[in-house]
Amino acid sequence: MLEKMNNISTQPLDDSVPVCKKRKCDNECNEAEKDGDSSSAVVPFSFAFSDFKLVKVLREDARGKLVTLHGTVGDKDAVVVLERKAFDIPVLEECLQQTTVKETLQNDVYSTFDVYSSGSIAHMKATLIHPATEKHISKYSDREPFIVRETPELYRSVVLPSIQENKFSFQWVYNILEKKTESERIVAEDPDPEVGFVMVPDMKWNRENVESLYLIAIVHRRGIRSIRDLRQEHLPLLENILNKGLAAIEEKFSVKADKLRIYFHYQPSYYHLHVHFTHVKFEAPGTDALRAHLLEDVIDNIKMNSEFYNLKTLSYIVREHDALYYAFQDKKYFV
Amino acid sequence: MLEKMNNISTQPLDDSVPVCKKRKCDNECNEAEKDGDSSSAVVPFSFAFSDFKLVKVLREDARGKLVTLHGTVGDKDAVVVLERKAFDIPVLEECLQQTTVKETLQNDVYSTFDVYSSGSIAHMKATLIHPATEKHISKYSDREPFIVRETPELYRSVVLPSIQENKFSFQWVYNILEKKTESERIVAEDPDPEVGFVMVPDMKWNRENVESLYLIAIVHRRGIRSIRDLRQEHLPLLENILNKGLAAIEEKFSVKADKLRIYFHYQPSYYHLHVHFTHVKFEAPGTDALRAHLLEDVIDNIKMNSEFYNLKTLSYIVREHDALYYAFQDKKYFV
Repeated sequence: MLEKMNNISTQPLDDSVPVCKKRKCDNECNEAEKDGDSSSAVVPFSFAFSDFKLVKVLREDARGKLVTLHGTVGDKDAVVVLERKAFDIPVLEECLQQTTVKETLQNDVYSTFDVYSSGSIAHMKATLIHPATEKHISKYSDREPFIVRETPELYRSVVLPSIQENKFSFQWVYNILEKKTESERIVAEDPDPEVGFVMVPDMKWNRENVESLYLIAIVHRRGIRSIRDLRQEHLPLLENILNKGLAAIEEKFSVKADKLRIYFHYQPSYYHLHVHFTHVKFEAPGTDALRAHLLEDVIDNIKMNSEFYNLKTLSYIVREHDALYYAFQDKKYFV
Repeated sequence: MLEKMNNISTQPLDDSVPVCKKRKCDNECNEAEKDGDSSSAVVPFSFAFSDFKLVKVLREDARGKLVTLHGTVGDKDAVVVLERKAFDIPVLEECLQQTTVKETLQNDVYSTFDVYSSGSIAHMKATLIHPATEKHISKYSDREPFIVRETPELYRSVVLPSIQENKFSFQWVYNILEKKTESERIVAEDPDPEVGFVMVPDMKWNRENVESLYLIAIVHRRGIRSIRDLRQEHLPLLENILNKGLAAIEEKFSVKADKLRIYFHYQPSYYHLHVHFTHVKFEAPGTDALRAHLLEDVIDNIKMNSEFYNLKTLSYIVREHDALYYAFQDKKYFV
């Protein structure tokens, strides 16, 4: 019955809605039952896990308490992303009163417990994609990772031809640079065609909490694909992004240089040079040493040797079904 | 009543214990109630969240679904680490049958739901430290991070004196190297005093799942504090660790080089040179570009310039209350 309450979708449980502490916790614990009483809404869609037949676990993230499942609902494929809920701090203490615990270990001052809730608390959230296509299933699957050690020779013989062959469109990048889109979101800009850039918020940032700040500086100059292409002639561009980017972030968000992780991705997700600025407290995806290259390290390395990134072997992760995965496979790189 | 079941601590719910799928799920859902019936045990310790008064949220990890709380139990301080449970894949499908869902959003093929369990499922685990000292509270607190750009000059004037002053004991390291402890855990070894090392599993690895493989190679040679000290003369040592380490891991665990992230930490947690080998699928702490330095990059950089790590400015995170934090503060590095 609950699963038919489609009218609730117009009023999602939103943490940002202010409610008194007491009520919020009651809601979280009891709303499921209460909602069962009102059933006058139109029902264009319904779902219950009793209708879901598991086909395969696509991905498991034990640290993030998340699993992705491929299954069927009726005769159609479905993908379900199941994730434990983060704790709701304002009402946590109160909600904990309604729990019982079972000790699993005790040693000196340390004890561990399993925690059970007596009320009906929504402790998971689910995302359902139904009907799901092959593409959905592939996108949510755990694709096997391989570490590639890209020598300059491998770059020239495998990677560069693959990038050129894929003919990515940069129209969306040019739209930002020419202020045709997202112009109201611009945080900093320098129109100079050689050393200029436009800085905009990344989609992953809600622009509310500066501790999850994520900005992207996109260079005006065209034709620089990635750090592989950087030489001494680009130092004024790189130093301009660093200095003007830092100044703009301090001015607009009061976040100082010593709180900012500033880096390139290699491989990048698109081959028009751009720099990531993220708050050091934000565990952004792609900050791993196998992908992130600190802007200041790049500047130092090029100053030491203009050909550093022309000569360097660069290590990174390639995943099954990536375009680059097929390019390396064609050359029999993986054994 | 449940919280007094201290006898349960001798039989922790252990996922590795084989039980039939049906029973496991029933257990997870109902064990809390069932256990309430047997109460003949000695009760040296009891805890319930109704006794816990929250003082302060020490740390929040929304991605890991984890919070650390400082509170009091009676008149004593306590630290509680509260963490959502990861999903138990073998019984997941069955447990999902006992849930109800409430739709929170619907758009085309995408829907999101809050998920409620009807049974009593342990969906959190808690670690309690009680009584807790100031040191416990500080250890579990979120300490403010600062990015330091350590120039060679800062290394010599601030960092090296701080390392020397702290006079860390390496006895536990020497015990491993001399096989006084952990000798049964050794994965690979080369007794050569110049290029040799001992490889042992890190405490974070349970040695069961190779996809969370975490090994440490500790060099026999004494006096190399960190990558700052590495020069061309150390290339045979570094290449020996790389080659023999990879060979041992492939032989013992069938994990190949293209699945292994191999790196130093800078700053390291102890100043006797050691190398981390982790499975690329394992999101080990400390793989961020602000801490991890790939062994193969270090080898390449030293080959290019023996003084690379003597001249390089190295960026890393220092946290409030770290020894280095105070060292930098004394020199008025933070403004």
